[in-house]
Amino acid sequence: MLQAYYEHDMTEEAVFELFMRRSPQRGFFVAAGLEQGLEWLSQLEFGPSELEWMQHTGLFSNAFIERMQRFRFTGEVRALPEGSVFFAEEPLVQIVAPLPEAQFIESRLMNILHYQTLIASKAARCTLAANGTPVIDFGMRRAHGGEAGLWAARACYMAGFSATATCLSSARYNIPASGTMAHAFILAHDSEAEAFERFARSHPDNVVLLIDTYDVKRGAQRVVEVAQSLAAEGLQVHGVRIDSGDLAANAKIARDILDRGGLTKTRIIVSGGLDEYRLETLMAEGAPIDGVGVGSNVDTSADSPFLDSAYKLHYFRDRPRGKHAEGKTDLPGRKQVFRHYDADGLLSEDTLGLLDENLEGDALLEPVMRDGKRLKMPASGDLDCARARCEKALATLPAPLKQLRTPGQHRVSLSPQLKALREELAQSYR
Amino acid sequence: MLQAYYEHDMTEEAVFELFMRRSPQRGFFVAAGLEQGLEWLSQLEFGPSELEWMQHTGLFSNAFIERMQRFRFTGEVRALPEGSVFFAEEPLVQIVAPLPEAQFIESRLMNILHYQTLIASKAARCTLAANGTPVIDFGMRRAHGGEAGLWAARACYMAGFSATATCLSSARYNIPASGTMAHAFILAHDSEAEAFERFARSHPDNVVLLIDTYDVKRGAQRVVEVAQSLAAEGLQVHGVRIDSGDLAANAKIARDILDRGGLTKTRIIVSGGLDEYRLETLMAEGAPIDGVGVGSNVDTSADSPFLDSAYKLHYFRDRPRGKHAEGKTDLPGRKQVFRHYDADGLLSEDTLGLLDENLEGDALLEPVMRDGKRLKMPASGDLDCARARCEKALATLPAPLKQLRTPGQHRVSLSPQLKALREELAQSYR
Repeated sequence: MLQAYYEHDMTEEAVFELFMRRSPQRGFFVAAGLEQGLEWLSQLEFGPSELEWMQHTGLFSNAFIERMQRFRFTGEVRALPEGSVFFAEEPLVQIVAPLPEAQFIESRLMNILHYQTLIASKAARCTLAANGTPVIDFGMRRAHGGEAGLWAARACYMAGFSATATCLSSARYNIPASGTMAHAFILAHDSEAEAFERFARSHPDNVVLLIDTYDVKRGAQRVVEVAQSLAAEGLQVHGVRIDSGDLAANAKIARDILDRGGLTKTRIIVSGGLDEYRLETLMAEGAPIDGVGVGSNVDTSADSPFLDSAYKLHYFRDRPRGKHAEGKTDLPGRKQVFRHYDADGLLSEDTLGLLDENLEGDALLEPVMRDGKRLKMPASGDLDCARARCEKALATLPAPLKQLRTPGQHRVSLSPQLKALREELAQSYR
Repeated sequence: MLQAYYEHDMTEEAVFELFMRRSPQRGFFVAAGLEQGLEWLSQLEFGPSELEWMQHTGLFSNAFIERMQRFRFTGEVRALPEGSVFFAEEPLVQIVAPLPEAQFIESRLMNILHYQTLIASKAARCTLAANGTPVIDFGMRRAHGGEAGLWAARACYMAGFSATATCLSSARYNIPASGTMAHAFILAHDSEAEAFERFARSHPDNVVLLIDTYDVKRGAQRVVEVAQSLAAEGLQVHGVRIDSGDLAANAKIARDILDRGGLTKTRIIVSGGLDEYRLETLMAEGAPIDGVGVGSNVDTSADSPFLDSAYKLHYFRDRPRGKHAEGKTDLPGRKQVFRHYDADGLLSEDTLGLLDENLEGDALLEPVMRDGKRLKMPASGDLDCARARCEKALATLPAPLKQLRTPGQHRVSLSPQLKALREELAQSYR
C-alpha cells in the first residue's frame, strides 16, 4: 500500500481515527495505552535490519526502500487522556498525518492501545465489583506474552487496583508491588509451620501466609500458633491467603480461627479464578475478605478477550471518507467528543461532532503530538494522574452503565454537521 | 521466597513440572514456545537496574542482593519437542534445578510456554477445520501486545498455517509473509478501479484485491474490468478478498462473476471474525474459498483465552512433593510420558510413569538443557521441524479428539510406580 501511495504522490494529510464498536459485555471503556503509543510513534523508523529484509523479499522497489530510510511519523495526534471513560464510536485517538504514515502505523498502534484499553476496561469493572476492597494483579503467568503482563499491571493500576505481583511492572511504572508465596514454598518444607516461620523472618514487612496447601482450617490454626512464637521476635502476621475451595466459606472459617486466636488485625486475601462476576458475588455474601488477587481472567479479559476496535480513514483530499456497504455508512470527518453531565454530576450524554464545531460540553480529545513530537502536557503521560482521572470518571457513571451483566448503553448523539457530512459521504456513492 | 531459601540453605535440586489441567474445549494441546523458553533460561541474570530496584525497595537483605548478582539458571530441562501433541497432566517441561532457581523461573517460563501452546493448540483446530485450505494469520492488531502478535504468527505457522501478515514475524522466524490491502487503501482513491490498478502495479507478485468496501458484486465486476487492462501490461489478479457479510454467499457471488469474466484462476480469500467453528461451517457449505485469514479469535484464543496451566514442585530432598487437599493429591515425582499407537498408527493411549521406569512406548520428554546450557539437538529449535512434527502428530489423532465441540478425552493411564509414589505422598500427610 505504501509503495503505491508514494508512487502516485498520495502523501497529503489524511485523518484516521481509532475507535471501538459497541460491545454487549461492556457498558463503558477506559482509555489506556496512549503513553506507549506515543512513545512508539515518536521513535518510529526503519533500521538496517528492516531495510535489509525489505530488500531480501524482492517485493519492493529500490526507490521505495530508499524512501523508507527517511520514514518517520511527522503527524499530529489528538487523543482521550489515559484513564478517561469513553464509549462506542468515540475516537480514542485521532491521527492527522501524510497518508502513508497514517496508514503504516495501524497494526502496532492498535496493538498497543487496544490491549491496554481492553484491560483497563475489564479491571475497572473489578474495581467497581470489589467495592473498596483492594485488588491486586496476579496475572503475569498467563498473560499473553511479556509485554501483555507488564502492560496489564499498568492498566489495572490505572483502573484502581492497589498493587501488582509483577516486580518488573512495579519497577518500570512505579506501581506498588505486593508479594505472595507459592504452594511450592510450603511443599518444599517438611512442615507448614516451618514454612510460615521462615517466610515471616525473611519477609518481615509483609507477612502473608498461604494457608490452603493442606487444609484451610488447620492452616489457620497453625498461623495462630506460629504468630505467638513470632510475636516474641517482634514479628507480626499481616495476612493469610486462601487460593482454593469455596473462598467465602473458607474466609469465614479462617476469620473465626484468627479472631479467636487474637489475630483480629490479620487480613484475609483470597485468589483463584476470580473476576468481576465472582467478586460481586463474594462481596454480596459479606465474606470477611480484606483483599483479592486476580489474574488470568483479568489479564486476558476472559469474558471478552478482544474489543471490536477499528482504525479508519475518515477524511482525505478535502472529502469525507468512509466505508459505505450494505446500507451502513461510517461516520466520516475529523471529530471531537463533547460531554455533558446532569445536575448530580453524572454523565448524561455525549455529542459526537466535528472538531471545529464549538459545541457545548467538555471537549474530550486533547492535542498530544504535533509534527511527530510529543507535547508537554500537565496532566497526561503520568500514571498517577491517569489513575485519579479514572477514579473520578467512574464516579460519574450512572448505575445502568456499571451493571456487570447486560449493561445499559450511554447516549451518544451526533451533531447536525456530522450527520450532514455522513449524508454527503453516502451521496457520493449514489 | 528465594531469600528464605538461601537463608536456610534450601538449595538442593528440586523437580518442577509445567503441565496443563484438563480443558473441556480442547481435545488435545500442541506444545510450543520451548525455543523462547530456553533462550530466556540460558541468558537469565539480574542486571544493574534490577539489583538497584531490589536495593531501593528495602525488602531484601544485602547478602541476598549480593547472591542475586551471581544468579543464573544452572539446571537441567527435559521437554516435549515443539509441535508435539500432548494431553492434560502430561509434563510439557520438566525442570531439575537448585530450588531457588526452579522457583524463580515460574512466572516468565509459564508466560512464554503457556501463550504459544495456547495459540498452537487453537491454530491446529483451525488447520483441521480448514481441511486443506490455506490459513493466514492476520492477528497482530488485536493480539495482546507485541510479543503476543509475533509469537502467535510463529505458533500458528507451527500448527499448519501457510503465512502471516505480520512482517516482523516473517522476518524473525522465516515464515512466509502474505500481504493484504486495507479498506483505507480503497477509500483513499477516488474510485475502486483506480485503487485496484495502482495496487496491482505496485505489488505485482501477489495481487489480492479487497472487493467489499462498497458492494461485493460490483467489486468483483470491477476486478474483471481491471483485469483486462492489467493483462495488457502483463499483470494478473491473483486473488480477491472479502472481509464482511455472509462470506459463503459472497464468495459464491464473486466466484460466479470472476469465472464468467474469465478469471477462473483468481483465488478467493475470506476473512472477518473467523475461527475454527466458522471455518468448519464454511467448508461444510462448500463455499468456493481458496484461502482464509484469521485474526483476533485465534491470536487471543477467544473461546478459551487461557489454559489451566500449572507449575508444581514434585520432588525435593528425596521425597515426593505435591498438594494434598480436599481429597485430591497431585501426581508427584519426576515423570516421563510413554505413548502408544494402534495398528493404524493412531494414538491409543499414553502412560504417565516415572522417568527411570523403562516402560514400553515412545518416551516423549527429551533432554534439552544441562547445567543451564542448551543441548544441540538434531530435530528441535527449528520451526520447520516443529511444523512437520505437528502435522505428523495431528494425523495420529483419533476422530473424537479432533471434534471441535465437546471433544473426546485421550486415555492417559498411570504406571504402577507413579501410583505408588502418589500413595506415599498421600500417606505422608495422614
